[in-house]
Amino acid sequence: GAGADNDLYINQAIVFIEDAIQYRSINHRVDSKSLWLYRWYYSRTCQWILSLTITIILALAFIEKPSSLTVTSDVRYRLPAWNPPCGLTESIELLCFLVFMVDVSVKSYLVGWEEFWKNKWLMAYILTLIVSLTDWIVSLSFLCTENVRIRRILRPFFLLQNSSMMKKTLKSINSTLPEMASVVLLLAVHLSLFTMFAMLLFARTKDGQQDKEWMVYFRNLPDSLTSLLVLLTTANNPDVMIPAYSKNRAYSIFFILFTVLGNLFLMNLLTAIIYNQFRGYLLKSVQSSLFRRRLGIRAAFEVLSSLKEAPANAQQSYVNTGALQQVLQKVEMDSRCKQAIMRSLKMCSCDQLSVAQFQKLFEELDKDAIRQHPPSPDYQSRFMQKIQFAFGHPYFGYLGNVVALANIVSICVVLVMDADKQPSERDDFFLGAINCFFILYYLLEMLLKILAMGLKRYLSYPSNRFDGLLTVILLVLEIATFAVYGFPHPGWRPEFIGLLSLWDMVRLVNMLIVFRFLRIIPNMKFMALVVTTLLDLVKNLRAFAGILVVVFYAFAITGIMLFKGAVISVYIKKVVFSFKGKCGFMDLFGYFQADVTYCLLYLLSLNLICRWAKIYFVAWWLISSVIWVNLFVALLLENFIHKWDRRCHREPLSDVEYQRTVELMFRDVLEEPTEEELMEKLHQHPHLQLCR
Amino acid sequence: GAGADNDLYINQAIVFIEDAIQYRSINHRVDSKSLWLYRWYYSRTCQWILSLTITIILALAFIEKPSSLTVTSDVRYRLPAWNPPCGLTESIELLCFLVFMVDVSVKSYLVGWEEFWKNKWLMAYILTLIVSLTDWIVSLSFLCTENVRIRRILRPFFLLQNSSMMKKTLKSINSTLPEMASVVLLLAVHLSLFTMFAMLLFARTKDGQQDKEWMVYFRNLPDSLTSLLVLLTTANNPDVMIPAYSKNRAYSIFFILFTVLGNLFLMNLLTAIIYNQFRGYLLKSVQSSLFRRRLGIRAAFEVLSSLKEAPANAQQSYVNTGALQQVLQKVEMDSRCKQAIMRSLKMCSCDQLSVAQFQKLFEELDKDAIRQHPPSPDYQSRFMQKIQFAFGHPYFGYLGNVVALANIVSICVVLVMDADKQPSERDDFFLGAINCFFILYYLLEMLLKILAMGLKRYLSYPSNRFDGLLTVILLVLEIATFAVYGFPHPGWRPEFIGLLSLWDMVRLVNMLIVFRFLRIIPNMKFMALVVTTLLDLVKNLRAFAGILVVVFYAFAITGIMLFKGAVISVYIKKVVFSFKGKCGFMDLFGYFQADVTYCLLYLLSLNLICRWAKIYFVAWWLISSVIWVNLFVALLLENFIHKWDRRCHREPLSDVEYQRTVELMFRDVLEEPTEEELMEKLHQHPHLQLCR
Repeated sequence: GAGADNDLYINQAIVFIEDAIQYRSINHRVDSKSLWLYRWYYSRTCQWILSLTITIILALAFIEKPSSLTVTSDVRYRLPAWNPPCGLTESIELLCFLVFMVDVSVKSYLVGWEEFWKNKWLMAYILTLIVSLTDWIVSLSFLCTENVRIRRILRPFFLLQNSSMMKKTLKSINSTLPEMASVVLLLAVHLSLFTMFAMLLFARTKDGQQDKEWMVYFRNLPDSLTSLLVLLTTANNPDVMIPAYSKNRAYSIFFILFTVLGNLFLMNLLTAIIYNQFRGYLLKSVQSSLFRRRLGIRAAFEVLSSLKEAPANAQQSYVNTGALQQVLQKVEMDSRCKQAIMRSLKMCSCDQLSVAQFQKLFEELDKDAIRQHPPSPDYQSRFMQKIQFAFGHPYFGYLGNVVALANIVSICVVLVMDADKQPSERDDFFLGAINCFFILYYLLEMLLKILAMGLKRYLSYPSNRFDGLLTVILLVLEIATFAVYGFPHPGWRPEFIGLLSLWDMVRLVNMLIVFRFLRIIPNMKFMALVVTTLLDLVKNLRAFAGILVVVFYAFAITGIMLFKGAVISVYIKKVVFSFKGKCGFMDLFGYFQADVTYCLLYLLSLNLICRWAKIYFVAWWLISSVIWVNLFVALLLENFIHKWDRRCHREPLSDVEYQRTVELMFRDVLEEPTEEELMEKLHQHPHLQLCR
Repeated sequence: GAGADNDLYINQAIVFIEDAIQYRSINHRVDSKSLWLYRWYYSRTCQWILSLTITIILALAFIEKPSSLTVTSDVRYRLPAWNPPCGLTESIELLCFLVFMVDVSVKSYLVGWEEFWKNKWLMAYILTLIVSLTDWIVSLSFLCTENVRIRRILRPFFLLQNSSMMKKTLKSINSTLPEMASVVLLLAVHLSLFTMFAMLLFARTKDGQQDKEWMVYFRNLPDSLTSLLVLLTTANNPDVMIPAYSKNRAYSIFFILFTVLGNLFLMNLLTAIIYNQFRGYLLKSVQSSLFRRRLGIRAAFEVLSSLKEAPANAQQSYVNTGALQQVLQKVEMDSRCKQAIMRSLKMCSCDQLSVAQFQKLFEELDKDAIRQHPPSPDYQSRFMQKIQFAFGHPYFGYLGNVVALANIVSICVVLVMDADKQPSERDDFFLGAINCFFILYYLLEMLLKILAMGLKRYLSYPSNRFDGLLTVILLVLEIATFAVYGFPHPGWRPEFIGLLSLWDMVRLVNMLIVFRFLRIIPNMKFMALVVTTLLDLVKNLRAFAGILVVVFYAFAITGIMLFKGAVISVYIKKVVFSFKGKCGFMDLFGYFQADVTYCLLYLLSLNLICRWAKIYFVAWWLISSVIWVNLFVALLLENFIHKWDRRCHREPLSDVEYQRTVELMFRDVLEEPTEEELMEKLHQHPHLQLCR
């Protein structure tokens, strides 16, 4: 009937508006039941459960068998890692797989059969699940004794497919690959030509004394390649040329040529290429988000305008204000935005909304969230007003910075004086006393500021929150210290009592004081700019970081499978060292232990595994250090240049804080989608039949 | 009289046109004698003498006293360097100073008295000369025994002041300094805060076994600062965290945080800032060159139009064609351009030239030099025509590339097989025989190509010149080998005869063959693009390279003065090693010897000189590695992105080669100066009084 139809239209409008708010695609089923399922799937609880499941399945690696998550990494002291019984991690995995199966079925159902076949990500998702389940069954049937577990390498895929940002980024990276491959090919040519030169130049001579260079670095083809590849990472820079250089200074020309061509030209060319490819990346992605938002709003308008209540108007379609209010009440969105839209709807005071009016209403979504700080309290007495003026003044804040600096300097002086003292000679009185004084000052500063600004206004500034929190923690620590060890006095060197020794307490307090000193950042203009750029960058980098996590996880798991056990890790360690500075992060998971004995090294150095290790580390270096770092530089350049250009345009308004999002940063350059584009896209919708 | 006036005007026009061609400023004296002096000063001979003088005075450092320019850098084997007698280098220096004095006087006279006082470079030039001469007198009066020679540090100034490009670049760098200083300040804050954290975190504990980290890296404030500074260069990346990491894995968080913030964020921020500042640099500099050119042409027009012969025309000024021809004949310029201008002047067939016509004539100067390759010879016989078709075809070139590749592969195979053989076991027959065959093929290829293309056309391609030259050298080497050692046969292992052993000859031949393989570059599209970008970059980088040479020279001389003698160089070596990968180039001049004994190290480690060495190397690292490399990256990005954007626009025309200069690269975006700007600038000329 008409009522059921109307309910359906209202529900469609609600979902479309929610899609617009979240920048989601509107290409999903739009019948009543599917809409309910859709809203349920994108509800906070469901998405939270999905994220939790992904986190759990990724975190399993930390407790699964070849893990070595122990406090120390020194094999001499470390206790054997906890070994979960067979079936424990496997049952957790099964639960996760069940959740993923529900996820993939709901997703597939919602996009519809036709779309499903076009969606490669969904197909890959199903395939990954099938492979993982098969591997899981194999694993259980071997009672967890089998070595190769493919499903572990596949795990990061679940993280990847759940984020549309990451999928988009991956597509961008993919389109840059041909150019990157060309430069990598060039690098390979460069490397191989220079390797041949090196082998001819540093050949074995009849005088055994003279061929040190040959012995150590250019003994055979793989050694020469490795030496020069490592030189490309600058890890062995002067060492590799020292023997030849001692023989004849002219040999240095070879190494300088290699470094200048390889490191200075080719490596930076990679940066240039990646930057060139990514220059428009942010803008393009923001532009497509904007299109999705406008499309969602427009779709909502179209379905609302086909409501039966609306008067049939041949020329133009209109939306009833009442229907829109009904929709708005049910839409889940930021309460500030909702109120603003409701308010302008009431102010409009018309009964019907045209397309333009409708879209104008929702422009509130694109606006900066302007946050007004609460006002200071109004004191009646003159004395209080004077106090308020004095301690609410910026100069009081500067004084606080100066005191914090003095505190840092005093800690520094004590550290320098105590540097070479034995722990038993150390006298904690001086530091205890001055810290006590400074912490009292910090407390006073906080209280006076609260008095002057009022608690609400005080807390509305992030710098004050940071400040206040640290001051409270410092105070608690100090009180705890005095409660356990008594007040400081000359020769104050109490024995160890309680959880932490006095020395540890004092160190902790000092570290917190150093950390608190960061409050000066907003006071320095350039620093503030840099810090906000970095924070923006972190926001934009989430997708990149996610992809890095995916790559890293896959590498780490492959690493465990390839080189498990402590004996081999000794060799790995040597390889890691030869790539040092570039592979430091590989150790994060603790798979490659910092070992103390190198004695088994030479036994292994001709092993097959070593070659695998080399290839593995070269791949890791290329991906993490060369490509990822360059992507990072490209994004940083992009972000920073936008920010820098913008800095001149706008002056900071006092007392008003802008919460800028990426979308807002580009607002001036974004193009609004045209009427035709929107309507064409709407008519292509696979499930929505528009009346006209 | 009028004739003398006319002569003066003609001379002025000649000089102005030459200024325009060379992009020189026209703000110099314009009376007859000054013009003669000006043309003499900017004549090739004079400028060549000046360049030679600068080269000589800079090169003096290689033979002056604390130099160590010997073949080996090993102190055990090296002979004492040649010590020039007192007075030899000093008299060469005096001659150079005399040339510089003439240079500065001519320059000062030519710009005129008023301009002289505004020109800071000229003042600095005179000051430098005075200081250098004073130092020279002091040096002679001490009979060359004094240690501190200020004039040596001042020498690179002579290089700097002679190049207008370098002066312009220096100005650009100067304007970027405030932003760079901000980031360096941020880095310093980052470093000092983390140093304090580290000193608190890795403090000395009561258990001597546990504080390895403290012992080695964080013993006191200077040690901690150095450790973290070196970590910022990634030279000690995993080492510095291993002791702490073995104790507790969580300590790695500190090092990762430090590296991510410092290396990934702050260092790349520096790149972003420098790139942002230099984005418009190239364009701006080309734009100002264009302005100078247009101004010179316009000035020539103005003086020519005030010739007495020309009819007085109230509305518009005209230039007589005859006068222009007279001027053109005396102007020194590229003969191709001159002919083109003369030709269009004749084709114009009018008696008078307006401003627009005059300027249009000289647009020939801005045009690409299009080089047509000479035609292939026309053979009459059908057989020769077939041969010409076959060997002039690109496929014949590809075949040559394939053969060169086969040669490389064969050398590679022999190298791998011979890698572990003793020199006495080595059989040179195989390599000798195949190289002989390949070189014969190369000779044949060259001859056939010359036959097909004719010698002139063959030589007009740079790739053929490269190819032919190497083939001839290879042939000569091979003939010499056979002449001395006879033809190769199995077991061909002759003893050492003549200048080079057979083994060295074979190695040299192989190296040349590897080098010859580079001829494939123009055949690969992407490689060709990269190589042309790099060549362009090298052209644009001359000014930067010059500034680097200046900085490097000053650093090297300061280095000699601060740390001369082998004993101290041992310590320097240690510092160099701690900055390894970043300071490798410091050794170029050979001042810091690769030493073998480290025994004196600890005696010196508390010396005052060590601190100086640290500061010296940190400064060097900041300037050479951080700032210069970032400038380089900025320029590379700028160049590459321009080139890349342009690549799509134009298709390569067959048989036509463009000789692109920087000026031409930007032609599409350059703005022509307006009439008003030109005339305003002309009226500001300090020496030229225009009639109207």
